[in-house]
Amino acid sequence: MQTLKVNLPGREYDIKIEKGILDSAGELIAEVHNKCKVAVVTDSNVGPLYGDRLLTSLENSGFEAFWVTVPAGESSKSISMLEFLYGELLGNGLTRTDLIVALGGGVVGDLTGFCAATLLRGVPFIQIPTTLLAQVDSSVGGKVAVNLPKGKNLVGAFYQPKLVIIDTLCLDTLTDRNFSDGMAEVIKYGVILDEELFCRLENAPSRKAVMEIIDEVVYRCCDLKRIVVEDDETDIGGRMILNFGHTFGHAIEKKYNFTDYTHGEAVAAGMVMAAELGEASGITRDNSSERIRSLIKKFNLPDKVEIDKQSLAEAVAVDKKGKGSTVALIIPEKIGKVIIKDTEKNSIWIQ
Amino acid sequence: MQTLKVNLPGREYDIKIEKGILDSAGELIAEVHNKCKVAVVTDSNVGPLYGDRLLTSLENSGFEAFWVTVPAGESSKSISMLEFLYGELLGNGLTRTDLIVALGGGVVGDLTGFCAATLLRGVPFIQIPTTLLAQVDSSVGGKVAVNLPKGKNLVGAFYQPKLVIIDTLCLDTLTDRNFSDGMAEVIKYGVILDEELFCRLENAPSRKAVMEIIDEVVYRCCDLKRIVVEDDETDIGGRMILNFGHTFGHAIEKKYNFTDYTHGEAVAAGMVMAAELGEASGITRDNSSERIRSLIKKFNLPDKVEIDKQSLAEAVAVDKKGKGSTVALIIPEKIGKVIIKDTEKNSIWIQ
Repeated sequence: MQTLKVNLPGREYDIKIEKGILDSAGELIAEVHNKCKVAVVTDSNVGPLYGDRLLTSLENSGFEAFWVTVPAGESSKSISMLEFLYGELLGNGLTRTDLIVALGGGVVGDLTGFCAATLLRGVPFIQIPTTLLAQVDSSVGGKVAVNLPKGKNLVGAFYQPKLVIIDTLCLDTLTDRNFSDGMAEVIKYGVILDEELFCRLENAPSRKAVMEIIDEVVYRCCDLKRIVVEDDETDIGGRMILNFGHTFGHAIEKKYNFTDYTHGEAVAAGMVMAAELGEASGITRDNSSERIRSLIKKFNLPDKVEIDKQSLAEAVAVDKKGKGSTVALIIPEKIGKVIIKDTEKNSIWIQ
Repeated sequence: MQTLKVNLPGREYDIKIEKGILDSAGELIAEVHNKCKVAVVTDSNVGPLYGDRLLTSLENSGFEAFWVTVPAGESSKSISMLEFLYGELLGNGLTRTDLIVALGGGVVGDLTGFCAATLLRGVPFIQIPTTLLAQVDSSVGGKVAVNLPKGKNLVGAFYQPKLVIIDTLCLDTLTDRNFSDGMAEVIKYGVILDEELFCRLENAPSRKAVMEIIDEVVYRCCDLKRIVVEDDETDIGGRMILNFGHTFGHAIEKKYNFTDYTHGEAVAAGMVMAAELGEASGITRDNSSERIRSLIKKFNLPDKVEIDKQSLAEAVAVDKKGKGSTVALIIPEKIGKVIIKDTEKNSIWIQ
């Protein structure tokens, strides 16, 4: 078992990574929290696959567990689903010395995390991410949120888990498309911070090849994010580099109603857009734009998505990275190095 | 002008208290924040009385201000009103380097504060409390929340303002009932921490008499709360004494659908219930129970409210101070001193 320690002021926690670790979840949770009631929140895809194993493990370790299932899909990251969760958890008698566990992908993690952050002004929270995207993206940083009609993640909080448990065996049940969804974020870490990781992916350009080194890849991504987040917990400075590809990605997701493209697909196209913008401005060099495009395509991710000027402008207008009339865009200089560029909102447009 | 400094780790702010200070709000806010867009959230009672003066002051200091009005009353502290606010603020182009100001009583402060805490994962926030209850209760502590059908303040956060501006002249437009609503909390501070304050109130047993010493009274209450909160920011220990009268008070508010009794009226009756429970257990002494009852009645607050066992049990079951099968009740030993008593939920019943 690999253990990554995340150290935020007053809130330290471990990320445990191992194949098959789900069956030890109860024991691991018992190491960080007293016996109590545990609400497991999962979705209609993940619950049938892994819910029983988690509940059994929790009960074997003396916890009183129950689960709540939300429909799979981005549409569950809503205020109305949040209200449903509040009602279910309180209805089952949960108090703020109990525990809430998120078992699932990013939607379940973000929704459940925001629920935990706000219910009774905060209930202890544990993440068990089951998709590649959630394992490399949601395990570190404490960003939890729900969507509004005006955009993604517009309501949220910074809320750290007490523990993150990553079972990379869970990735075996992902569809190819869902696996690629996570690969977009893995590629992102390579571009923004780690040329070596990027090169390793160039040399392992398939799902099968990546799965042979998956524990290392997940650990490396979590560790890179840890370094960035420990330096800037509340997202006012350097942490913004994690946003590479996301401003355009969010615009794409919104334009296509959060349905036609996955988060990773939108971010993949967004990364290429940012790199092309950088190339046009003379910032992005060394053929980096082409290397990004090429690696993205190896994992069947789109390198281009049609989006009109109006949709882009509207999404940028409500981007959380906005400051008055400008927005901070992340632009690669080369593989492994990006810059933050304050850009006039109304000047952003790629032909 | 009196200034009280609140020092929480990394989040220090001032409380400014003075008659007529509302007209200087723009200048005071300019001292703590850059010129920006300012969303003033107020309600249908307070907006017409003080909204224009605040907007004028903000605009004279170079801020671009707009206001949003919610209906007056506890029913606005809802998830649906929160959604309305999110939409209005984003619709007006607010970003997370702008400001949100709450102008009004506790409902506006709690709703707006929770909106500020969660919109875009946190927008800077300023409180201008206009009721006595909000001035002595909401200025310190950072507790913000909305209600759920199952109970009061069940969804919330700890979120500190950048500044609190208290204009005690605003109290002149309160009804007698609303003034008394705040007096319940003022009396609470006397009972839990400050016998001298309690005695001063016994010697100033009317609205008119209290208004002659109001700046001192408000300052003293805020200072007492500051001392408690600085010691226990996230409400896990000593801060619980501020809950005196509130477990029963919340039960009363809920039983009567948050309409028949004000928060202060419910807390007043709740304080007497807690003191009587303490007397019956031999904890409360020195005729304290009778002194509390007598002072409460001087301000036309109820010393007894009918509540059935079932309603009480249901409210205690979801009380945030609950830990499994027990709830922490605050019981006075004498005026100026209370204890925290873990009590079995199903043993709480006053004949």
